[in-house]
Amino acid sequence: MSDTLALIPAGIDTYRQPVVYMNEDCHICRSEGFAAETRIRIDLKGRWIVATLNVVARGGWLAVDRAALSASAWAALGAREGDSARFSHPEPPASASAIRAKAYGGTLDRAAFAGIIRDTLDNRLSDLDLAAFITACAGDRLDRQETVALTRAMQAAGETLDWGGALVLDKHCVGGLPGNRTTPIVVAIVAAAGHLIPKTSSRAITSPAGTADTMEVMAPVALDAAALRRVVRETGGCIVWGGGLNLSPADDHFIRIERPLDFDSTGQMVASVLSKKAAVGATRVLIDMPVGPTAKVRSVRAAEGLGARLVSVGEAIGLQVSLHQSDGSAPVGRGIGPALEAMDVLAVLRRGPDAPEDLRARALDLAGKLLDLAPGTKAGQGRARAETLLDSGAAEAKFMAICAAQGGFREPVSAPHRLEMTAQSPGTLTTIDNRVIARIAKLAGAPRQKTAGVRLLTRVGAKVERGQSLYEIHAETPGELAYAQAYAAARTSVLTLSEVP
Amino acid sequence: MSDTLALIPAGIDTYRQPVVYMNEDCHICRSEGFAAETRIRIDLKGRWIVATLNVVARGGWLAVDRAALSASAWAALGAREGDSARFSHPEPPASASAIRAKAYGGTLDRAAFAGIIRDTLDNRLSDLDLAAFITACAGDRLDRQETVALTRAMQAAGETLDWGGALVLDKHCVGGLPGNRTTPIVVAIVAAAGHLIPKTSSRAITSPAGTADTMEVMAPVALDAAALRRVVRETGGCIVWGGGLNLSPADDHFIRIERPLDFDSTGQMVASVLSKKAAVGATRVLIDMPVGPTAKVRSVRAAEGLGARLVSVGEAIGLQVSLHQSDGSAPVGRGIGPALEAMDVLAVLRRGPDAPEDLRARALDLAGKLLDLAPGTKAGQGRARAETLLDSGAAEAKFMAICAAQGGFREPVSAPHRLEMTAQSPGTLTTIDNRVIARIAKLAGAPRQKTAGVRLLTRVGAKVERGQSLYEIHAETPGELAYAQAYAAARTSVLTLSEVP
Repeated sequence: MSDTLALIPAGIDTYRQPVVYMNEDCHICRSEGFAAETRIRIDLKGRWIVATLNVVARGGWLAVDRAALSASAWAALGAREGDSARFSHPEPPASASAIRAKAYGGTLDRAAFAGIIRDTLDNRLSDLDLAAFITACAGDRLDRQETVALTRAMQAAGETLDWGGALVLDKHCVGGLPGNRTTPIVVAIVAAAGHLIPKTSSRAITSPAGTADTMEVMAPVALDAAALRRVVRETGGCIVWGGGLNLSPADDHFIRIERPLDFDSTGQMVASVLSKKAAVGATRVLIDMPVGPTAKVRSVRAAEGLGARLVSVGEAIGLQVSLHQSDGSAPVGRGIGPALEAMDVLAVLRRGPDAPEDLRARALDLAGKLLDLAPGTKAGQGRARAETLLDSGAAEAKFMAICAAQGGFREPVSAPHRLEMTAQSPGTLTTIDNRVIARIAKLAGAPRQKTAGVRLLTRVGAKVERGQSLYEIHAETPGELAYAQAYAAARTSVLTLSEVP
Repeated sequence: MSDTLALIPAGIDTYRQPVVYMNEDCHICRSEGFAAETRIRIDLKGRWIVATLNVVARGGWLAVDRAALSASAWAALGAREGDSARFSHPEPPASASAIRAKAYGGTLDRAAFAGIIRDTLDNRLSDLDLAAFITACAGDRLDRQETVALTRAMQAAGETLDWGGALVLDKHCVGGLPGNRTTPIVVAIVAAAGHLIPKTSSRAITSPAGTADTMEVMAPVALDAAALRRVVRETGGCIVWGGGLNLSPADDHFIRIERPLDFDSTGQMVASVLSKKAAVGATRVLIDMPVGPTAKVRSVRAAEGLGARLVSVGEAIGLQVSLHQSDGSAPVGRGIGPALEAMDVLAVLRRGPDAPEDLRARALDLAGKLLDLAPGTKAGQGRARAETLLDSGAAEAKFMAICAAQGGFREPVSAPHRLEMTAQSPGTLTTIDNRVIARIAKLAGAPRQKTAGVRLLTRVGAKVERGQSLYEIHAETPGELAYAQAYAAARTSVLTLSEVP
């Protein structure tokens, strides 16, 4: 009896989880004892994956002598219509026992992490296994040594860019602060000062926009390593999506599971950041940690713990890490969402009268600290130099050069559906809840819909009248606008007003 | 624009995870911004579920104005072909934040567990959320108070049987020992002594057979609460599948995730056991803990820890728990797998010459201890009384009466495909690895295939010749036989032989 079946594309998008569909009367299903949700190994022309079985009822759309693959399974196998693949029971992946050990409170070494990463990249671990791994590492459950091991294993799983021993600067912001889109400005200033800063960024994990999402509104970001090198050779800097490169490639798989779980882990956060910095060839890295009660890092103490871990793991892998704490008590700029944040970035670079002052000041702080790390600037003079480069238009010109080199600049546009949310009573705006405002932007469609999000129309400390507009919800569909509005209307804590005495 | 679509069954079995299929050109997909793997709320006639979206390519099997549901989603909504359902973005389930808190190392109270259980039963948590919950509770991560809270929340989510204040005995074995199928024998003896013992059992979680799987070979086990009451009223005892009742109904959902992860948790194990015992109305419970290096409980110390937790949580919920430690160093009886274990059980009850002595002795130990817990037997006389009831045939007659009351006795049969594994060298059999032998039985198809498993042909301590048969693999398909054989052939640790000097 043959254990092969001809493959067809199922025409079903299951996101990244590979699924194989078989007819319930299929001879392989029957002879192998496969039933719904069984994990099945599929071999084709030297490649193999493990997919989850969904069983199609007899009389349905699937012939008895065919196996259909989800889009991700089809792509992972490099299948062509009619290819004959072999089906078998998979050996349990070796790394599953490492995940189990970690869940039970054990500690893992580099080989164990490398095994988990290899099986992740090869689609041999199920989504449940990955969720277990993420959960087992959540909070503070990876110690320093494990974090070093995970960082190295993540870096080693992909490429590392080589800049021939040059000084290479980089920055990273530990997220959680809506609208805090300093990166494009900082890269433009640092590159304008003549330094190398090959910046890769991620898309949003649990926030309404990542730097890559925002930058993509203004220029292509899905560059490969060769294109990245060319852009940096031409301009000194770049702002590209890290997921399009093969730098620490497991990170995106972990993010795919972390995103719906809405989990963070100190160890995984450090490994994610530093493995990418090491892979991009950075030698000196500045980490910005916004601290605030509703930011990702909630207290100075938490920032110190995370910062110490970043410095110490950086040292272990040969990376000089500097830290910067910033105010994380409220959103930065006006916009929250890819296009709305891009507009703030451009306003600062263009020195327009509408440029958000807080975003400008934060970008100058960071660029200044980075310049202080590099030779050519007197210690402590970095910020003044950054300001000169921004005010002279040199940073704007550099940013436009980077966008051109990445494939061409494009001007952000506004969403078609907008709604102003107004104050129910007069008062002074005392706080903005970062998490609630971020959730509103996400319900409005950000980051999936580029122009969706929230635009703040007032600032903490401002006096507002009853009926005055506090913020605007932007969406690309009426349905998303309505969801975001319904959620916002039910939350009194979005913006807190002190009562007028 | 309408947010409703007509429903059709997808004819796809995704096991318990509800999946909804929409055409990529469907107006709801587009207007709501739904994309693959989005979680979608579906409302129909007062019921609602949250399902995962899979997107079907245009030109495929799904019309643009229809939404197709997986078998589990269809059943959960009670849908009929053509029903018009409403689609919307779900609010994040409230219990997701409790799971996150637990993953980060927090502690949960009863209300938090009740919320997780409610959302689990209502299909509002994703499989990733459940995997995170299981992982966050793995090992020793639930403290005593949390375990009490989880136990009560699990019991309260379902029904509790009422026996009018009568003394109700029960037993439970903390699994991990292949072939240790004492329950049918113990229930028969205790019921023959005139006591109430309404025994519910689970199907296998990570083992090749659960008591329900084994009992189902001999009689129907999927009884409802009314049928259970009738059987116990008629015979004093029963051996039914707990999942067919509404006793601690969340347990099966947790098991569905624990099974592929192959995880155990002290707290969840205690809550699973005691919530079911409390729900079945038991007042005195004996817990059997086989201890051995490859059993589920690996050391006397681990047994004491688990035992103390069982007694202490039992006390908190008003249940008198007694403990029994037994030898968990090797499989019990000859068979491993539902039908093979059923044959061992029947051999003991029928007092045949082939009855496995170890299984008989263990069943008598447990039945004796249970009789000692109840009035009517002089302390310490329980075992002798149990032996009399077994040897006289009273237990066999009682077992047949229970099977008849449950729907009719049936004799187990052997698998069609069998293969003997032989010794590569002569020696004395020193150890059998429970985990490896269990994995072989599972690869052969147990417990899904009732007659699949392993039959041991020799015992620890026996001398074997080179070429002598050590055990037999039983399977219902040639493919499964081949997998089990390939795995067994690659593992030298299945049975360890000391070399002949």
